[in-house]
Formats: sequence, structure tokens, C-alpha cells
Amino acid sequence: MQISFSQEIQLRVRYSETDQMGFCYYGHYASFLESARVETLRSLGISYRKIEEGGILLPVTSLQIDYKKPLRYDELFSIHTKLVSLSACTVTFDYVFYNQANEITTTASTTLVFTDAKSLRPVRIPNNIIDTLRAYEIAEK
Amino acid sequence: MQISFSQEIQLRVRYSETDQMGFCYYGHYASFLESARVETLRSLGISYRKIEEGGILLPVTSLQIDYKKPLRYDELFSIHTKLVSLSACTVTFDYVFYNQANEITTTASTTLVFTDAKSLRPVRIPNNIIDTLRAYEIAEK
Amino acid sequence: MQISFSQEIQLRVRYSETDQMGFCYYGHYASFLESARVETLRSLGISYRKIEEGGILLPVTSLQIDYKKPLRYDELFSIHTKLVSLSACTVTFDYVFYNQANEITTTASTTLVFTDAKSLRPVRIPNNIIDTLRAYEIAEK
Amino acid sequence: MQISFSQEIQLRVRYSETDQMGFCYYGHYASFLESARVETLRSLGISYRKIEEGGILLPVTSLQIDYKKPLRYDELFSIHTKLVSLSACTVTFDYVFYNQANEITTTASTTLVFTDAKSLRPVRIPNNIIDTLRAYEIAEK
Repeated sequence: MQISFSQEIQLRVRYSETDQMGFCYYGHYASFLESARVETLRSLGISYRKIEEGGILLPVTSLQIDYKKPLRYDELFSIHTKLVSLSACTVTFDYVFYNQANEITTTASTTLVFTDAKSLRPVRIPNNIIDTLRAYEIAEK
Repeated sequence: MQISFSQEIQLRVRYSETDQMGFCYYGHYASFLESARVETLRSLGISYRKIEEGGILLPVTSLQIDYKKPLRYDELFSIHTKLVSLSACTVTFDYVFYNQANEITTTASTTLVFTDAKSLRPVRIPNNIIDTLRAYEIAEK
Repeated sequence: MQISFSQEIQLRVRYSETDQMGFCYYGHYASFLESARVETLRSLGISYRKIEEGGILLPVTSLQIDYKKPLRYDELFSIHTKLVSLSACTVTFDYVFYNQANEITTTASTTLVFTDAKSLRPVRIPNNIIDTLRAYEIAEK
Repeated sequence: MQISFSQEIQLRVRYSETDQMGFCYYGHYASFLESARVETLRSLGISYRKIEEGGILLPVTSLQIDYKKPLRYDELFSIHTKLVSLSACTVTFDYVFYNQANEITTTASTTLVFTDAKSLRPVRIPNNIIDTLRAYEIAEK
């Protein structure tokens, strides 16, 4: 199922996120992506916290990041997050980072798998989430 | 109960742990202290992982760090950890960091409280841990 | 010089900041304190980024944190930061964390030393900062 | 230029690296990859620290990670790092993570670009590095 839903968050590079190159360390982007997709779900009325409380985990199975321009300490940047597709058990988000000059600094993609917290096996995406997302489905031609 | 047991570990500053001052970021020391006390317990035959699997958590309730000299990227340093005291429910560790020139770079202290994982209330330190540590008790005068 | 200036920021616990106890890991608080004091300076019209660009670093020399109650994933909390004192070369901030139930979860204090970026020696606090802060000086009796 | 040089390091999952799923948080792997490639270079007699001191930075431009099995707190794991190719300005490393049961838990790849620290423009890989790596070149057919 192809989806089109996007959301934007704004973050500022913390001092703890810089490295001695003077850039935001490349390893911190994964945490930014996490914040971005949690806020994207929240804007759809879906709480990731409640998904976990319901016994379902959503670990990342695939991460891809392209770093085009550095982000620096104290710099504000925005992440445009797009929920792009659903399969039976997985969901894929794409991300584009913009700096204050509106330049693309980073692009990324993550795939997550709905996972039973006890068995750690993949599970079908809960119906209430499917129903919420169906409103944003892209009709196939 | 005053204890005297000490242990040493050696670590190297990772690039991810630097900041744009070119030093090891002050916030990463808490994680170093964690590694240092876990290895100290391991050298006593006490597995922190098994304590948790037994339903007891060991959160830090107090942290004090004095930063005397910076640590830099790729620098090797050692942490001398001393288990210094036990009360009914708490344990205190003191730490001294040395760089390769054998200078003291950092001193620190943490207090942790044995906590029931379900109720989140303090619990008495398990007897097997008390028994292990009694061997290192400092006789009162 | 005793100062009274306080400022509040609000943060949310990121997933990356949890640990397997289900709490915000104790080591991440140092980064929260950094954000809190940078925003406190910003609200005074003082940019920490510009201080560094002017050749002065502001490393932390002393950190003290008392953890009273845990913070959990996705929890909103606020940090009340107080700039409490200045000496010739150092500045001290005190912090109190509140959860959504308005309970104090954490208290902390940090001392930072104005440091020449080249020599790494302490330097006197720049006059423009002193002048800004003098407006908040507490008169001695 | 296709290269074949590999190296192995062993790490243990720190408590600070767990998340509330009880797994090693997906964002920390980037830091593990950094340690793995720095040690790979070190085993070739190449110090990343000295490259930076020589005015060349080596930022990551592309990161890809596939998470196949989780790593848990206190778990020992090894990373097999392979330096696989060089272009005029870039170097690519591939990584495979193994747990204690010798299962592949994670695969990853990073591309880094040799960058002038002042201009932040790509630069040709220094000759001494090329010369060192040429010993491991795979002859084209």
C-alpha cells in the first residue's frame, strides 16, 4: 500500500551532538529520524508509546542515510518526513533535512517491522493503524 | 559497612565521544562510570545483568564528577574504581581517571539504590552480594 | 557576585534516551543541562556559539546530579535553570527538573570555567557578559 | 581500486547503549562502525587521528545498515570490517557483526570522503595511504 503523508519537525543541533570536526556527528541522525517519525505518527493520532504499551515493538530493520552537507552546532534544521509505504508487517519512512538556507543537507530512509514484544516475531500491522493510514493511500492506476 | 575493593579498566575516547572543543564531551563520562562499575562487579563474580534478570534494578541516585583535565580523541585512559560503602539498600563507588601520562584527569562518585523492578521501591541488598562484599569489609576500630 | 536569573525550557524524552530499565538513562541528563543553560544564556541575549567563535571555551569543571524520580519515554519535562553565581573566571548554574505532575524529578548543579581556546587557561569573563549579568545581581546586605 | 583488507574488533553492549526494548539502540551502531574502521586503519599503520592533525577530515557521506538480529545488554559481539574500495577521494568499508553464537546480526557499509579541513572540499587521498593500501589491491582480470 503506497501512502502519502508528510510532516515536518524542527530541531537544533545540541552541543553534545557535535564532534571535533565541528559538525553534528553522523551517528546522531538516527535519533533525529526517530523523533521525526514519532512526531509524524503523533500528528496522525498514533502514539508510538501506546503501540509499545500494547505489546508491539517497532524496531528498525534497515537504515540508509546520505550526508550531503554538514549541520553545525546551534544550527536549526527541519526534517520533512514522509510515510511512504506499508506492507503486511513493515512501514517505510523517507526523510529530507533542510537547513535555514533551505538547502537539502541530508536524505534518509528507514524500514521498521511490527514485532510481537514477547515472541519477537513480525506481526500484522494493527487494524486501527491501517485504518488511519488508509485515508492517505495513493490510488493505483 | 565500609568496603575496600578496587578494579581498573582501560578505555579509549571514541570519535563519537568528542565535541567541537576537541575534548571528550562531559556527558559521556556517566557511561564510562557505568562500564567501570559493571566491570568492578564482574571481577567480584557479580553480574549486573543477572541482578536485573533477578528482578532488581540498580539506578543511580547521585552523580558527582570533577573534570580536572580534558581527554582527547583516541586517547587511552584508565579508570580506577573503588567500591567504598554499602548501606541497607545503597552502594557507593568512587572513581579516578588517569591519562597515559599518569595524571589524574577526572574524579567521580556515584550512589546507586537496589530497587524492586516491579514496585520501584528500594530493597535490601541481596544476601549473596553482601556475602561476597563482606570479604572486603574494612574493620572498624 | 550572586546572580538571580532563571529560565525554563521544556523537553521530551527521546526513545534514544531510554535504557532497558524503561527510564531515561542517567547519562543523558548532562546533555539536557547543556541545552538548558544555552537557552538561559540565549534569553539573556548571550550566544554560547558566539562566545566560542570569539575564542573562549566554556568547559564544565564540576557536575552534580541528584536523581529523585525517573523520567520515562515520551514524557514531557521542564528544566528551571538558575544562573546563581559568577567568580572571576567561573559561572555556576543550578537546575530543577519537573515532570507533568509538577513533581521535582531531578536537581543538578554545574560549574563552568571561561577558558582561552588556544592556551586552555582560565580567562576573566568578558566584560559584555559581566555587564549583562550585573542587571541581575543580588545586592549584598 | 578494489582492496581486500579485513580486520576484526570485539565490543560489548554498554548499558547506556540499550533502549527500553531491551536491545542495543539502532543509533549506536554508527559509533561502533567508527571504532571498527579506526581500528582497521590502525592495524594498517594508519592513524585517523594523525590524518586529522594533517588537515584532512574524513566525514561519512553514506551509511547503510541492515539490522537482522538484536544485540542485548552486556552481549559481546565482533565486527569484521573490510576495506573494499578506493576512488580518487573516497573510501568504502563493509562491516559484518557476529554475536557469540556466530550468527550474523548486522551488516553495514559506509563511504567516507577525504576532505580538506579548511575549504571542506574533497581532496585526493594522500599518497602514503594509497601506497599502504596498494599492497592489498585486488588485481583486475
